[in-house]
Amino acid sequence: MSTLLEHLQSQCEPQWQQYTQHAFVRQLADGTLPRHCFEHYLKQDYLFLIHFARAFGLAAFKSRNLTELKRANASLSGIVDVELDLHIQYCHQWGISQEQLENTIESTPNMAYTRYVMERGMAGELLDLNIALAPCILGYGQIANWLLAQPFLVLENNPYAEWINLYAGDEYQQVADAHREACNAVELSNLDGARLHTLVQTFDAATRLEIDFWQMGLDCS
Amino acid sequence: MSTLLEHLQSQCEPQWQQYTQHAFVRQLADGTLPRHCFEHYLKQDYLFLIHFARAFGLAAFKSRNLTELKRANASLSGIVDVELDLHIQYCHQWGISQEQLENTIESTPNMAYTRYVMERGMAGELLDLNIALAPCILGYGQIANWLLAQPFLVLENNPYAEWINLYAGDEYQQVADAHREACNAVELSNLDGARLHTLVQTFDAATRLEIDFWQMGLDCS
Amino acid sequence: MSTLLEHLQSQCEPQWQQYTQHAFVRQLADGTLPRHCFEHYLKQDYLFLIHFARAFGLAAFKSRNLTELKRANASLSGIVDVELDLHIQYCHQWGISQEQLENTIESTPNMAYTRYVMERGMAGELLDLNIALAPCILGYGQIANWLLAQPFLVLENNPYAEWINLYAGDEYQQVADAHREACNAVELSNLDGARLHTLVQTFDAATRLEIDFWQMGLDCS
Amino acid sequence: MSTLLEHLQSQCEPQWQQYTQHAFVRQLADGTLPRHCFEHYLKQDYLFLIHFARAFGLAAFKSRNLTELKRANASLSGIVDVELDLHIQYCHQWGISQEQLENTIESTPNMAYTRYVMERGMAGELLDLNIALAPCILGYGQIANWLLAQPFLVLENNPYAEWINLYAGDEYQQVADAHREACNAVELSNLDGARLHTLVQTFDAATRLEIDFWQMGLDCS
Repeated sequence: MSTLLEHLQSQCEPQWQQYTQHAFVRQLADGTLPRHCFEHYLKQDYLFLIHFARAFGLAAFKSRNLTELKRANASLSGIVDVELDLHIQYCHQWGISQEQLENTIESTPNMAYTRYVMERGMAGELLDLNIALAPCILGYGQIANWLLAQPFLVLENNPYAEWINLYAGDEYQQVADAHREACNAVELSNLDGARLHTLVQTFDAATRLEIDFWQMGLDCS
Repeated sequence: MSTLLEHLQSQCEPQWQQYTQHAFVRQLADGTLPRHCFEHYLKQDYLFLIHFARAFGLAAFKSRNLTELKRANASLSGIVDVELDLHIQYCHQWGISQEQLENTIESTPNMAYTRYVMERGMAGELLDLNIALAPCILGYGQIANWLLAQPFLVLENNPYAEWINLYAGDEYQQVADAHREACNAVELSNLDGARLHTLVQTFDAATRLEIDFWQMGLDCS
Repeated sequence: MSTLLEHLQSQCEPQWQQYTQHAFVRQLADGTLPRHCFEHYLKQDYLFLIHFARAFGLAAFKSRNLTELKRANASLSGIVDVELDLHIQYCHQWGISQEQLENTIESTPNMAYTRYVMERGMAGELLDLNIALAPCILGYGQIANWLLAQPFLVLENNPYAEWINLYAGDEYQQVADAHREACNAVELSNLDGARLHTLVQTFDAATRLEIDFWQMGLDCS
Repeated sequence: MSTLLEHLQSQCEPQWQQYTQHAFVRQLADGTLPRHCFEHYLKQDYLFLIHFARAFGLAAFKSRNLTELKRANASLSGIVDVELDLHIQYCHQWGISQEQLENTIESTPNMAYTRYVMERGMAGELLDLNIALAPCILGYGQIANWLLAQPFLVLENNPYAEWINLYAGDEYQQVADAHREACNAVELSNLDGARLHTLVQTFDAATRLEIDFWQMGLDCS
């Protein structure tokens, strides 16, 4: 029996592969990504994180029981109390000041993804929100693991090694596992055709928006 | 095979009966309800209609396809373009001016029901909203039909006969049928236990809030 | 120059006094409140806290900057990570098990208040949400301080002394101060008549709903 | 004294000009836009209209009085009962079937704009939603009028003449006027700095997202 997420991923296989094996991440692995592309990505990612935190606030609002509420609270706190500060420090290493982060103009692909997630979260129920968040949360973990197994990987003197290790690390993998569990709490066999169709559309759209996000990084635009 | 609504009603049988056979509606049928109680009810119902219209605006926002969007639009227009004016005219017959309607202070049971419906609509998906609306929309139609079949019914010189006939009439019954269809678009067998539990809770709470609404009418408070 | 909250309170003076000097709290102070009334209140308050947590999740979603986001996150965590556990322990002292708390049926006044707060939060902006939350957050702090100054106060052998001291204590007063600051971040002189009217209505309704909440405690209903 | 919209437009002058005088609309006016670009635009615009309808459903939910509710209802009905059918007919003239419209994959710039509008509508109050909608509603009217006054305009044998005349026509100009009035119901002098800053950001972002929408049309991507 497939889980819900396995089903969604199998229905969006070509896009999922395009996203998780995108040129942007390949160039992270072999260290050839131009620095200014990565810096552009880091700045957009700062804004992304803030809207992701808001999405978990929405998840807290949409919770129907203490389990869901505690999970949403943990994710929100994780970003607001920990990740944002780590991101600011990491950007500092790359010569990007907090002021620069705060004055970054959101790119259109960034807006498209974050606003899509929040709209799904508002219009649908908690599951729709969780599925819209899934390609990001699960994808990053999968990408990092995949990159570590590729022949073109170069970790030595690779300025992006820290990024890869972060997302392949235990701490992040546990975050991904927790989100996977939240999504798969619903049995695939218990979803009717129309409901499943909506979820496939959401997973597909979010995956395509992730492809656009990497492309934005590559195009520095 | 039961429909979703049949299942929900059967799970909340005692409350459903308390609501649909409440002393308030029995006294409408035999004409013994004190006029000031009915007038109190009419004033609260004006505010209720406005929030119900807002709930259908929310349903439009939550729609995933044109069918759902057209249905929500029809319900919203039905209230804003037709029902509110009819209600104002009907209140005028009872000596209640539009100004009085607009200056009515919302009673707590009124707030409880309308805000509960909107909260379910925000926090859940369209189905949750439709189920929260169901006890009102379907209940009124059922109550009017039930009253017409009761031995204690007195239509002659009953000041409330018009009210009963309105909700027993074809036009209203079609509104109720359309809402029933919208709710039952989901097959009962396609809902898992947790999802169904949430819907039972919603239907139960909305039914209890309808009981409180009648009681408010009876208590004029 | 008045602050926004001073203005709102002055516009709702009679209701504010009814709420903050309600028989329920007077009977807490002199220790005459029947135990089962307080126990009823404690059970309802558990459900109340969960919905209040959800409202702060909504506040996180509605935040426009990091300051607002961190504030909402702190309030949400405060409830989910700390207050709920303290409440469960406190209820245990009163012989109420966690299972009883979880199986409590929400009373209508409880639903009316919590759903009203969330509806204001959804329909308005963050300020509307904060003002809807204010009578509760600020009122409890003020009530506790007021009770401590009353001639009818009896702390010795008063089973409710712990409750009064909790809300009069530094920790809670700081929570109230933080919320006051968040509300007053907007200058009263910068709000136009229509905007201010909406906020007065919200503060007034929330205060009346608090009166109904105390009354529910007194009536054990 | 400036109105709110005049102020917002003046704060975003370069972007506003880029949007309202974009190569896409210039090529509509001189008839040189490749047909397939226009067809791509028409298909995306169909999806756009559906999400715009949803945004007006949201406006109905957020309404605080009958005036706002009736306005939102009229806009929603205008799209659902009239505009969508006209759009389908118009697309038919261009050889695009309804089935093609329904199977169109949303482009990223389309998603970015519509979801941004809805997110502003959810997170802010009605005014934030109205301002997010303004660049589209007012811009189209202004563009059509501006094009009609340009020396490069060619109406004869211009396949896009009907489009230009539609938006320059009385019916559409009245829609734009009504929205302008709704936005300007708030006096500029009554908004404090922080509130105004948020609205400038919203107007600016929505205008930039309109530029991207035209560019999507030009790039057929």
